[in-house]
Amino acid sequence: MKAWEKNVRTVVPYVPGEQPNQIGMIKLNTNENPYPPAPGVQEAIKSLDDKKMRLYPDPTADLLVSELADFYHLDKDQIFVGVGSDDVLAMCFLTFFNSERPIFFPDITYSFYDVWADVFRIPYECQPLDENFRIVKEDYYRANGGVIFPNPNAPTGIAQDLSDIEDILQHNQDVVVIVDEAYIDFGGHSALELIDRYENLLVVQTFSKSRSLAGMRIGYAFGNKQLIKYLNDVKYSFNSYTMNYPSLVIGRAALADRAYFEETRNKIIATRERVKKELAGLGFTFGDSMANFLFITHEKVAARELFEALKIKKIYVRYFNKPRIDNYLRVTIGTDEEMDALLAFFRDYLKKKA
Amino acid sequence: MKAWEKNVRTVVPYVPGEQPNQIGMIKLNTNENPYPPAPGVQEAIKSLDDKKMRLYPDPTADLLVSELADFYHLDKDQIFVGVGSDDVLAMCFLTFFNSERPIFFPDITYSFYDVWADVFRIPYECQPLDENFRIVKEDYYRANGGVIFPNPNAPTGIAQDLSDIEDILQHNQDVVVIVDEAYIDFGGHSALELIDRYENLLVVQTFSKSRSLAGMRIGYAFGNKQLIKYLNDVKYSFNSYTMNYPSLVIGRAALADRAYFEETRNKIIATRERVKKELAGLGFTFGDSMANFLFITHEKVAARELFEALKIKKIYVRYFNKPRIDNYLRVTIGTDEEMDALLAFFRDYLKKKA
Repeated sequence: MKAWEKNVRTVVPYVPGEQPNQIGMIKLNTNENPYPPAPGVQEAIKSLDDKKMRLYPDPTADLLVSELADFYHLDKDQIFVGVGSDDVLAMCFLTFFNSERPIFFPDITYSFYDVWADVFRIPYECQPLDENFRIVKEDYYRANGGVIFPNPNAPTGIAQDLSDIEDILQHNQDVVVIVDEAYIDFGGHSALELIDRYENLLVVQTFSKSRSLAGMRIGYAFGNKQLIKYLNDVKYSFNSYTMNYPSLVIGRAALADRAYFEETRNKIIATRERVKKELAGLGFTFGDSMANFLFITHEKVAARELFEALKIKKIYVRYFNKPRIDNYLRVTIGTDEEMDALLAFFRDYLKKKA
Repeated sequence: MKAWEKNVRTVVPYVPGEQPNQIGMIKLNTNENPYPPAPGVQEAIKSLDDKKMRLYPDPTADLLVSELADFYHLDKDQIFVGVGSDDVLAMCFLTFFNSERPIFFPDITYSFYDVWADVFRIPYECQPLDENFRIVKEDYYRANGGVIFPNPNAPTGIAQDLSDIEDILQHNQDVVVIVDEAYIDFGGHSALELIDRYENLLVVQTFSKSRSLAGMRIGYAFGNKQLIKYLNDVKYSFNSYTMNYPSLVIGRAALADRAYFEETRNKIIATRERVKKELAGLGFTFGDSMANFLFITHEKVAARELFEALKIKKIYVRYFNKPRIDNYLRVTIGTDEEMDALLAFFRDYLKKKA
């Protein structure tokens, strides 16, 4: 090691899911939306003015924040925006998790939480999900430095009842509690309604899934205005202008079309429920996912084997080589045609194995 | 203070320069480029495909990184990209400045350095510029936790000779040295040629000034590949997908047009040199700025007074109410017409005062 390397913050870097780009592939591995963003996005692209790009964007991101305020019936000072919900969550870890005590999150959960804890040197303790992959709320009653969990959880898709979340909040009023709702629009019950009663509650959502804008990197958080101010203070001390001009204009356009949003999420939900039945018939088991993906395991064939066999057919799903979940596949809900191709593959493959 | 607030990272937030948006205003306050981005940017906007926005962008930002590699004759693994040079610099502070010893930077400099040091709890020590606002290189010989300075410096515009920078590097081989070259394309001599000889040197640049893309938030850094890997490891542990799809496509298009880049930066340099002569004739003094702004003071009239008088006429410049520089104005180089309006105002105002 060279002398200059001794002050380097070394980390085990997060490895993002692979982003294959092949003709004819079926991409069900990173929980993207199979439908394009709202038609208004095309208009928004056309409206982008190259001459405005020489100027700094509005640091308050007002165009986007005010549209979010309208959509969710909130005040603008209850909303924070960032470069995807990963940026929002990273800012949250940096802002709120500064206790000597460990933060708590589930053992099976979004694989970025321990990465953020490591990079910011935050102590953490994982609380095991029960055998049905449900959060055991009592595990979160002990003293801690903060709580974070996704609802629905990833990669399980399991949604927690709002009463459980409120129970966790009641037992954790002296730390910040973050509910990561990346997948909430596909069937869970948002904790948004609790932010007026719990000033230590932050609810994080994203444009990457239900708004079909993963490529734009837009995430946001709701909370009481003091919490949002703390978050903005740190954000302004990190990068004053995080949201570029196209993300403000395009994000706003995607949000404005409520009918399209309802239509596409309902299509995804309908596809998911149909696929659940078909998969059950093929011998797969899984929790009752409320997200835009299923977390499946087969009674006879190993997940890893299926993962590799699918890949050969250019069908990409996600496999995690981690304790407790190494016999599962996370499968994004695509279009009906894509899911039919997946089901046809399974039918054929399992028949050959029988 | 509520119990949950005790673990909050509280900071004195950075206050970005005001972004007025008035009809007929002359905006010379945030060092934006007065010319639009390269004509290819219009084509790039038209090429944006809403259907691609549902997918995550390439986490390696290869479209942009490979174009930067071509432009600067570097390998791709010598280049890091981020959401403006502020994001790049924030990542650098987080990655490289983890010593118990203070980092060193000038007392008069980019006003974000002490903000990043505060937010990441990094000790720092400011080294005073001399009476001509030049860096005293000997001040950087003592043991420290890292060195950062802009070249040309902001808000003074003064460029440091490359031999001085190399001297600082020779005396600081056991820490990371960052040269922040946001304004380098307007006349300074880049330290890029030193990265092969000094593996602890990081050179940071931006699309916000010479590429007319402040609204797109694109910054980048050059360094030896191990340094870049450390930076990417932390970045991937913070947010895997920082650069959105439009920024990749539009950034690449802006970079591709070398002729336009040369033409506009030469226009700005020519305007700057003309304005220097005119301002000198009006009794202003200033260092020999190599940036796209001038840092001026008047022998008879207080900077604050001029700042307020200009504002009434919707001419916006930057005033810093800080020790040593509270009688200066930072004036961005705009178009010739904008600068003529500024000069006409000064001529008129100073005549009335005489």
